[in-house]
Amino acid sequence: MATAKTPDQPFNANKKQPIDTLIHARWIIPVIPEQRVYENCSLAIDDGTIVAILPRSEAQHRFTPTDEHHLDDQVLIPGLINTHNHAAMSLLRGFADDHPLMTWLEKHIWPAEQKWVAPEFVGDGTRLAIAEMLKSGTTTFSDQYFFPEATAGAARDAGMRAQIAFPVIDFPNAWSRNGFDAIEKGLALRDDYRSHPRVGLAFAPHAPYTVGDETLKKIAIYAGELGMAVQMHLHETAGEVERAVNDTGERPTQRLHRLGLLSPEMLCVHMTALNDDDITLLQKTGAHIAHCPRSNLKLASGFSPVGKLLAAGINVSIGTDGAASNNGLDMLLETNTAALLAKAVAGDAATLPAHQALAMATINGARALGIDDVTGSLEVGKAADLCAVDLSALEQQPLHDPLSQLIYTANGHNVRNVWVAGKQLLKERELTTLNEEELRQRAGVWRDRIAGRLN
Amino acid sequence: MATAKTPDQPFNANKKQPIDTLIHARWIIPVIPEQRVYENCSLAIDDGTIVAILPRSEAQHRFTPTDEHHLDDQVLIPGLINTHNHAAMSLLRGFADDHPLMTWLEKHIWPAEQKWVAPEFVGDGTRLAIAEMLKSGTTTFSDQYFFPEATAGAARDAGMRAQIAFPVIDFPNAWSRNGFDAIEKGLALRDDYRSHPRVGLAFAPHAPYTVGDETLKKIAIYAGELGMAVQMHLHETAGEVERAVNDTGERPTQRLHRLGLLSPEMLCVHMTALNDDDITLLQKTGAHIAHCPRSNLKLASGFSPVGKLLAAGINVSIGTDGAASNNGLDMLLETNTAALLAKAVAGDAATLPAHQALAMATINGARALGIDDVTGSLEVGKAADLCAVDLSALEQQPLHDPLSQLIYTANGHNVRNVWVAGKQLLKERELTTLNEEELRQRAGVWRDRIAGRLN
Repeated sequence: MATAKTPDQPFNANKKQPIDTLIHARWIIPVIPEQRVYENCSLAIDDGTIVAILPRSEAQHRFTPTDEHHLDDQVLIPGLINTHNHAAMSLLRGFADDHPLMTWLEKHIWPAEQKWVAPEFVGDGTRLAIAEMLKSGTTTFSDQYFFPEATAGAARDAGMRAQIAFPVIDFPNAWSRNGFDAIEKGLALRDDYRSHPRVGLAFAPHAPYTVGDETLKKIAIYAGELGMAVQMHLHETAGEVERAVNDTGERPTQRLHRLGLLSPEMLCVHMTALNDDDITLLQKTGAHIAHCPRSNLKLASGFSPVGKLLAAGINVSIGTDGAASNNGLDMLLETNTAALLAKAVAGDAATLPAHQALAMATINGARALGIDDVTGSLEVGKAADLCAVDLSALEQQPLHDPLSQLIYTANGHNVRNVWVAGKQLLKERELTTLNEEELRQRAGVWRDRIAGRLN
Repeated sequence: MATAKTPDQPFNANKKQPIDTLIHARWIIPVIPEQRVYENCSLAIDDGTIVAILPRSEAQHRFTPTDEHHLDDQVLIPGLINTHNHAAMSLLRGFADDHPLMTWLEKHIWPAEQKWVAPEFVGDGTRLAIAEMLKSGTTTFSDQYFFPEATAGAARDAGMRAQIAFPVIDFPNAWSRNGFDAIEKGLALRDDYRSHPRVGLAFAPHAPYTVGDETLKKIAIYAGELGMAVQMHLHETAGEVERAVNDTGERPTQRLHRLGLLSPEMLCVHMTALNDDDITLLQKTGAHIAHCPRSNLKLASGFSPVGKLLAAGINVSIGTDGAASNNGLDMLLETNTAALLAKAVAGDAATLPAHQALAMATINGARALGIDDVTGSLEVGKAADLCAVDLSALEQQPLHDPLSQLIYTANGHNVRNVWVAGKQLLKERELTTLNEEELRQRAGVWRDRIAGRLN
């Protein structure tokens, strides 16, 4: 975990320091240190990095910014980190709702994917998803989908921070012939992005039931040698765990542990249906969790015991899952759902309070992706990944507590400004690197294609 | 339940019919008949009443409206019906979050209410709540709070439809000395509104643990004689049911049934912790349910078995509860939460599909309040209580299915226009009967008072 540093340039009262950007906000919630809400402070950015957080009067005295922003009714927080997405699936949003899970997959999603998934679909879907994510305050996402080169390119071009977790599946699919082929292709893509400051690669063995031991062992070895992150759908439903025990004699967590995959590099996605042994294993190995509450609810997957996991010291982050099972990528809404649901599941209204929910959506996400030295909190020395949320809406009044209002009344619609690595990607709700009209038009083309109105 | 009627004036091709308002919408979802989505149709209003729903070309041929609206990207649905609210508590939104239920009530909410609740508080809080409700598509609400005359007046003046369920509590409070005093005051208020077209009164015995048998019997008699609705917090938590069984030897539903209160006039609010006998009683007596999922989650009250209740043919409606335990009054968000949660609780993703969720938020609410002859669906002869929701946002593309997008991607922010009894109360997100700046300023005054910054 990164700790706060002092700015590297000493304060000289006689000479103002030129910087790129100075943001004055009504409130700043840095996440680290925990549970702080700074009022009427400013955040200074130079060369993409946070160089100071300080009282407004002092900031205006000390810096000469090229660019200055006054966010009078807004709270500035770390950019949100969505640790599980299938961005391209935004094109299948609302395409087949209200079906039982296996009908949904086998009769609707898989056939549609089989017919349509190709680089063009992935590029268009990912750009649509990135636009939605930026408009709702997300600055970093982890993505797991076919043709990850198209996802990576879209993230790179839009200026987002992304972990491209390339899918490894033992059986043939549109992108790869088998697990080894996927690993080879994924590692080649990693070479292409080796020195990229915002886009990194990770392994995404799809799920215990689609990837065999040999492939998983290979991933464990590569991940260890290359210092790469791994993410995997795990314990998504009680049925999955039951079938695994029947088929292999092991619970999926036990099997992954035996194969050397449970470690601080591992992000376990979903994690409903957990027993005490599972929780102890996670605790012992330092593996992380991506909690996707809205997808778990909508697909009736089960309830993750988030309060218990957090109490055990396990790092729980938040993911939206793909828009086909959510049906959106709004991290504030997802975090709100996580906070509400955790209380009911734990049977205690004090479980997962607002400040902890915000930490899950930011610093815990950065830890889960192994990039907490770069992002996840507003600290000097970290990248200027920022989200500014308006708290002036009528439905947020009276404003007794900005942190409460942020978690319990705000959603993506209240996000007004977003920066990634110091570059403003959302400016008063306008995207700066993506053309919204074009995205809308492309989404219409895909709607018509999928409905069979076009070929 | 009202059935569709034909317009009373016959179509004469040579003479156009003058009407007040004609609304052309991209989609109209009438709720009754079920599961219909009309494309490019129009809804005609005269004298506050729906007089026709017909294809756009025919509508333009047939009517001369005073007022005409083109809702090109919007879906027109029945105004949403919030069957459980404590509107004035909006002033306590976010005032004491993340506390265990009894700490929240005993250390925070009750002391604040004891200090502040008076007609001025109720008037200001209710106006703030009405503004929020209108901006998020609600046209009818049922409210349970002290000084119901202030609530009724605010609803009347703002043009909303409301059921004012006056609180009956056996112990002294700011508004009434005891249960009989509350009944007397409430019935006097009913006299004041006897002929009001939009505001009606109902009994709200607070909860089984705050109202004794004598008072409940009295309410049962009056309600029967006067044809008045009753609503009551019931089975909010497993603890409440347990304590009732310990104290009285009866489950709360059994006790209410013995006292003659379970009937089609009864609206049971919350209803988690239900066993099969409870469900059979509800089924047999025709009592209704107000399901408040976000409040139940946030206060860790429990999970209502909504799928099971609907399958038993019980009428389940949706309420937000007060903003102090939600923290908002957004019925689209509440309905979305209800739909997602019901699937997970039932363990079946096909439970509570989009069309049924919309019915819960509209016609089921009207039935629960006993006003389904007036509102709850878009049918000729019913009041023109309408909500128009924009489906053109980027996070709603591609639009494979408007009903799915409405339930799974929209929230209050997407509501653009609202009519109650034919009068437009929200016009492209601007309130027509309430002054938003004044509401914001009053909320600020109450924030300062409650924080002790003002007296």
